[in-house]
Amino acid sequence: MSKGPAKAKRGIPSKVDNFNEWYPFIVEASDLVDKRYPIKGMDVWRPYGWKTMKLIDSLTHHEMERTEHEEVNFPLLIPENLLDKENSLVAKLKRAREEGVDPDELRDEEEEGGFKKEVYWVKHAGENELDMPMFLRPTSETAMYTMFPLWIRSHKDLPMKIYQMVNTFRYETKQTRSFIRVREIHFFEAHTAHADEDCATRQIAEDLEIVDNLMHKLCLPIIKAKRPIWDTFPGAWYTIGIDAIMPNGRTLQVASCHHYRDQWAKAFDITYENKEAKQEYCHQTTYGMSERLLGAIVGMHGDENGLIMPPDVAPFQVVICPMIRKNSEVDTIGEANKIAILLRDSGLRVKVDSRDIHAGQKYYDWEIKGVPLRLDIGPRDIAQGTAFAALRTGGKEPLAMDNIAELCREKLSEISNELRKRSAAHMDGVINELPQFSEENGTWSMSGEIQDGKIYQIPFEGTDAHAEIIEKATGLTFLGDATDDYVTEVPCHMTGKMTKRRVILAKTY
Amino acid sequence: MSKGPAKAKRGIPSKVDNFNEWYPFIVEASDLVDKRYPIKGMDVWRPYGWKTMKLIDSLTHHEMERTEHEEVNFPLLIPENLLDKENSLVAKLKRAREEGVDPDELRDEEEEGGFKKEVYWVKHAGENELDMPMFLRPTSETAMYTMFPLWIRSHKDLPMKIYQMVNTFRYETKQTRSFIRVREIHFFEAHTAHADEDCATRQIAEDLEIVDNLMHKLCLPIIKAKRPIWDTFPGAWYTIGIDAIMPNGRTLQVASCHHYRDQWAKAFDITYENKEAKQEYCHQTTYGMSERLLGAIVGMHGDENGLIMPPDVAPFQVVICPMIRKNSEVDTIGEANKIAILLRDSGLRVKVDSRDIHAGQKYYDWEIKGVPLRLDIGPRDIAQGTAFAALRTGGKEPLAMDNIAELCREKLSEISNELRKRSAAHMDGVINELPQFSEENGTWSMSGEIQDGKIYQIPFEGTDAHAEIIEKATGLTFLGDATDDYVTEVPCHMTGKMTKRRVILAKTY
Repeated sequence: MSKGPAKAKRGIPSKVDNFNEWYPFIVEASDLVDKRYPIKGMDVWRPYGWKTMKLIDSLTHHEMERTEHEEVNFPLLIPENLLDKENSLVAKLKRAREEGVDPDELRDEEEEGGFKKEVYWVKHAGENELDMPMFLRPTSETAMYTMFPLWIRSHKDLPMKIYQMVNTFRYETKQTRSFIRVREIHFFEAHTAHADEDCATRQIAEDLEIVDNLMHKLCLPIIKAKRPIWDTFPGAWYTIGIDAIMPNGRTLQVASCHHYRDQWAKAFDITYENKEAKQEYCHQTTYGMSERLLGAIVGMHGDENGLIMPPDVAPFQVVICPMIRKNSEVDTIGEANKIAILLRDSGLRVKVDSRDIHAGQKYYDWEIKGVPLRLDIGPRDIAQGTAFAALRTGGKEPLAMDNIAELCREKLSEISNELRKRSAAHMDGVINELPQFSEENGTWSMSGEIQDGKIYQIPFEGTDAHAEIIEKATGLTFLGDATDDYVTEVPCHMTGKMTKRRVILAKTY
Repeated sequence: MSKGPAKAKRGIPSKVDNFNEWYPFIVEASDLVDKRYPIKGMDVWRPYGWKTMKLIDSLTHHEMERTEHEEVNFPLLIPENLLDKENSLVAKLKRAREEGVDPDELRDEEEEGGFKKEVYWVKHAGENELDMPMFLRPTSETAMYTMFPLWIRSHKDLPMKIYQMVNTFRYETKQTRSFIRVREIHFFEAHTAHADEDCATRQIAEDLEIVDNLMHKLCLPIIKAKRPIWDTFPGAWYTIGIDAIMPNGRTLQVASCHHYRDQWAKAFDITYENKEAKQEYCHQTTYGMSERLLGAIVGMHGDENGLIMPPDVAPFQVVICPMIRKNSEVDTIGEANKIAILLRDSGLRVKVDSRDIHAGQKYYDWEIKGVPLRLDIGPRDIAQGTAFAALRTGGKEPLAMDNIAELCREKLSEISNELRKRSAAHMDGVINELPQFSEENGTWSMSGEIQDGKIYQIPFEGTDAHAEIIEKATGLTFLGDATDDYVTEVPCHMTGKMTKRRVILAKTY
């Protein structure tokens, strides 16, 4: 019962009217994190927030086990020379794209950049300057691919599917925001190695299936988009971004999958002996997610009264509030504890709030924390053999005590479905056709206005230059190709060419 | 089935004859870690090792939940100025001890030292030099106690009991050794704040009870010793070290508990309002453990053939090896899978090894990994309605199929007990009385020899100077006061004073 950051009794900023104030207020008021740690962008995870994150992680662990990924744990620190290796790979791929040639025809080339500008450096230890500077991992490609050649020898070692959940670091210079843009990131990364491109492609399909399973549990609607080439992860052949849509219409990339083909394998010499005893390069993929999943949950599901936790990851799925009356002969606390045991035995996460405070204060506390289901137990309820249920998504009703565990499960399932329904509605309304573009005397103009809080789609067969014109005119970012096309062919805004290719644009976090 | 570091077919170094070669060999050969990562003292946790560590962690989580600690997660990076705060506390306590005065009477004083010489520094990010250097946490007192004043207001907020499991860092200059002396440490730390000294003392008692529960599960015998003042954790009133005894007789500190009294609270201004509305300083404790627990398991339980995993933390408690015979009409693999399902349903962790390789190779692989119980399934076993069990601690017998899950549980319990029996025997034989010391003309001499592989006890009422003489003469380190005294009074070696005080000395890791 330790005190949280200032909880303004006067109330919570309106989510509908002012999402940008509501979000930072609510992550602290609900005790997810404390932002008062003396380094900006590095929050302290409080018990309620960390428990939620670990429940999200446990869904991921479950999916990893189902798909036979093995969990590893790599060192946080990476020697500088490995980054150089990565940078020269990235530089080569960039040059190959610009010059329209096969990257294998190009020589290695040093490039300053890539992650180099975004990492924290360790150049000193104790009172010494280190011979080889090291950096805090922003992600683990270079660390892992240094070890892969030691682990992969033959086709029998493939596919190799590993993952880890670790802290990663980015030197963010933009404004930080809890879960969404932080400098220490709670991160998930799966790395796989395969015999050929097709096997790696199948892995990407499996990743996207995992994404669907997770998002169903988190009740989050998402867009999957194949990122444009300029927004592809360094070293990747292609990247599929998975974006949640926040209430303000901005998209938040919560996951991404990268098909590396054999590009990294060539840079890190990751080969295997095939069935014909010939050495071949591996094809690789990665799949990453982060604490942004929690940011999306906060943003998407919350309401004017606080968070609404999806039941599958709610630290407490049910809170039981016994009515505290002095001199009452009815033992409401005893009854509450009895129900709690029943519910826990059936596998639910339950909290009994027997504090001797005003009921209104209890309701406020658990509403702001987003506990999906509240059971009030008063003498009259006990006499009637019921508990009075309040659903965090709205609605109240008495539940029969003699079937309480099953009824709570039903209500929780209703709440999940209600959250999915709300998110789907938000999603449906939010995607619009981009106003028409037309050119006159070399100048492009748009036939309508871009609305705040909306995202857009467009039939597109244009060039990178066309894309740049659109981004500039609209203030939107190309998320990339939607995984589902237009049903029939429509003309590209820029070239007039008939196409089913549907490109998504949005303001992004 | 990815390949591990070189597995010398020719065999494993002898544990009995050469523990110092056996240990580093076995941690890699059993696939716990890979030491070939390009930074010394930072190993890669392979799936088998990480799974074991997480099972150890889950026992700790369970104990934390039982004792109502809440899990948090603090940032890895700590600003330099917080370390200065710590150093001045440590300097003040040291000076108070030297001058024999109350630390409250002394002014703050800067001291170079403490952790300053042992930490990794982050002074650069991207291409910038940071205004405020930061360091990678070696432990989290300073980070946490910066937040405690924000969280603790009144006696109602106490006790506050939190913990985290995180990566910590020490710039080790000594020779590194997997799990035992590493530069990135998988670490557990519990931090508590209490109303007064007595409450904090009771917390230490609870910590030691948790230690007992954990060590029972890990089948590890330990020594608890109140560390001498010069080996007390900086800022602590007293420290209790928990040491395992490795086969070579060296002790390995696997856990420690610190009673801080209100010393840190005064340095970090951690106060609460008591029932009389008066501000009081909190009393604090910490309790730390690390991956050394796994090092102790490896060292204590292993044998000439590899690891022996205590069943409670074995990633696979049972491995089932169906006999693979071509053209056999008996489906041994099908039978193995059926048994696996039965065992898994009863909550056991099971692996089926249906590789088509020589049985001897399978046995070698699972023995080196220390799987406690192996079930061999051949056509004859199936005909007889049995599975043939081999216990990793020795002994083979057929187990009736129609009661297989319960019988496996029994065997696993036998194996745990056998490990406890062996460790207890090692412990019993290893503690000896220190040879008598005597002084002549100001020169101290010892009446006997110090034996390799032994630890010692001594009745002691001497001064720090006496202790130094003993350490120098014996090459041993004072572990501190045993938690149980001598039964009757005996004379102190140095002063002749009669005492029950029993001090433990050992060679330490």
